[in-house]
Amino acid sequence: MKTIDVCLSPELLHLYDLEDRTIVVVDILRATSCMVTAFAHGVESITPIANLEECLRMKAKGYVTSGERDGKKVDGFDKGNSPFEYMDGDLRGLKLAFTTTNGTLAIEKSKGAKEVIIGSFLNLSSVVRYLLLGENNILIVCAGWKGRVNLEDTLFAGAVVEKLKDYLGWDCDAPLAAQHLYNLAKGDMVKFLDSSSHVKRLSRLNISKDIEFCVTPDQYKVIPRLKNGVLLA
Amino acid sequence: MKTIDVCLSPELLHLYDLEDRTIVVVDILRATSCMVTAFAHGVESITPIANLEECLRMKAKGYVTSGERDGKKVDGFDKGNSPFEYMDGDLRGLKLAFTTTNGTLAIEKSKGAKEVIIGSFLNLSSVVRYLLLGENNILIVCAGWKGRVNLEDTLFAGAVVEKLKDYLGWDCDAPLAAQHLYNLAKGDMVKFLDSSSHVKRLSRLNISKDIEFCVTPDQYKVIPRLKNGVLLA
Repeated sequence: MKTIDVCLSPELLHLYDLEDRTIVVVDILRATSCMVTAFAHGVESITPIANLEECLRMKAKGYVTSGERDGKKVDGFDKGNSPFEYMDGDLRGLKLAFTTTNGTLAIEKSKGAKEVIIGSFLNLSSVVRYLLLGENNILIVCAGWKGRVNLEDTLFAGAVVEKLKDYLGWDCDAPLAAQHLYNLAKGDMVKFLDSSSHVKRLSRLNISKDIEFCVTPDQYKVIPRLKNGVLLA
Repeated sequence: MKTIDVCLSPELLHLYDLEDRTIVVVDILRATSCMVTAFAHGVESITPIANLEECLRMKAKGYVTSGERDGKKVDGFDKGNSPFEYMDGDLRGLKLAFTTTNGTLAIEKSKGAKEVIIGSFLNLSSVVRYLLLGENNILIVCAGWKGRVNLEDTLFAGAVVEKLKDYLGWDCDAPLAAQHLYNLAKGDMVKFLDSSSHVKRLSRLNISKDIEFCVTPDQYKVIPRLKNGVLLA
């Protein structure tokens, strides 16, 4: 039986064998939600970049610079970290250079895996179907917040576990904990997240519309995949 | 307002400032449950030792050797890792050298804190009262399983958060996740843990009686404290 595991923080990634895995990187608020939205609206590629300065240098090479630091848009960047900024047709066919506080670091650390894809509630069912049909063992890597565990990424992991529970096995407790939390939260995810630390942090930035959108399942079918360090649809 | 945080694995401990904290180390199945039981039955001191061979060498110095590796008693050791082995009066006044797969490592890693105490369901209310009356910020350190998150230690952390929620603040999500899981589980903790990985591992060792006892609150009032690398009542 294929197995599924959940890595609740990139700081725990060294505890897992990556070679035989399909890794799903998730940063619900808001990096991977933005990435999925961007591909659904015709972006050609996204290059995840952990470092701010390197990302800025990509501008000279014709890339659109995107991302945030501590939830806020970076001075001199073309785009911030709201999924609504990635919905116009104006990015069709363009290449993005993307850096965020947590999400791009999680992708960087996942590079030893057999395969890396990008997950969010926005493409949840597509990701679940893909994992179910694939041959590899699965690891959901939650981006967390500066190394610490967060609720929203854990809930996504729990949603995947809940939907695949009849088909997969696991031998550690993180999938179980995530599944319990998802089942508690699924009736009203926005309300459940109201008391979470990152939502409190973001509500100071006035982006409740973003949060509501980022926990809405199945808006898009696209599955971004990492290939030679670049994400493609 | 004092704060409480929950570190779900010793591998995440470097993310927290320790200097101003009282750390509660917890390894419900079964290291810290054994330690609390031993002190409640008159043991004089427990020296936590991460290394197996070093622990064995302590025997020549008059220590009782105790602990486990992968849940099993170690060849040549006096005592294993069941709380029921620490209930007779035969250990009264003796010094133990204690090594386990996860618990003693979590204690070792916590040594930078202002204060380190030992928690378990068996001394839950005493620990909660102590934390409430103390001045320090609080960090619950879950021993986990070989670096990974486990359910039973998370439930203990959630119990502490639930009982102190009106008096303390927090700014990360782990306390919240632990609290939700505890509230889900508290009606029947044994049943909730039935599907957990460590309980499955232990049930192969036939110790359901241990598990039931280890999740029973408030059997003892003792609070073991670390002083110069040695636990004292």
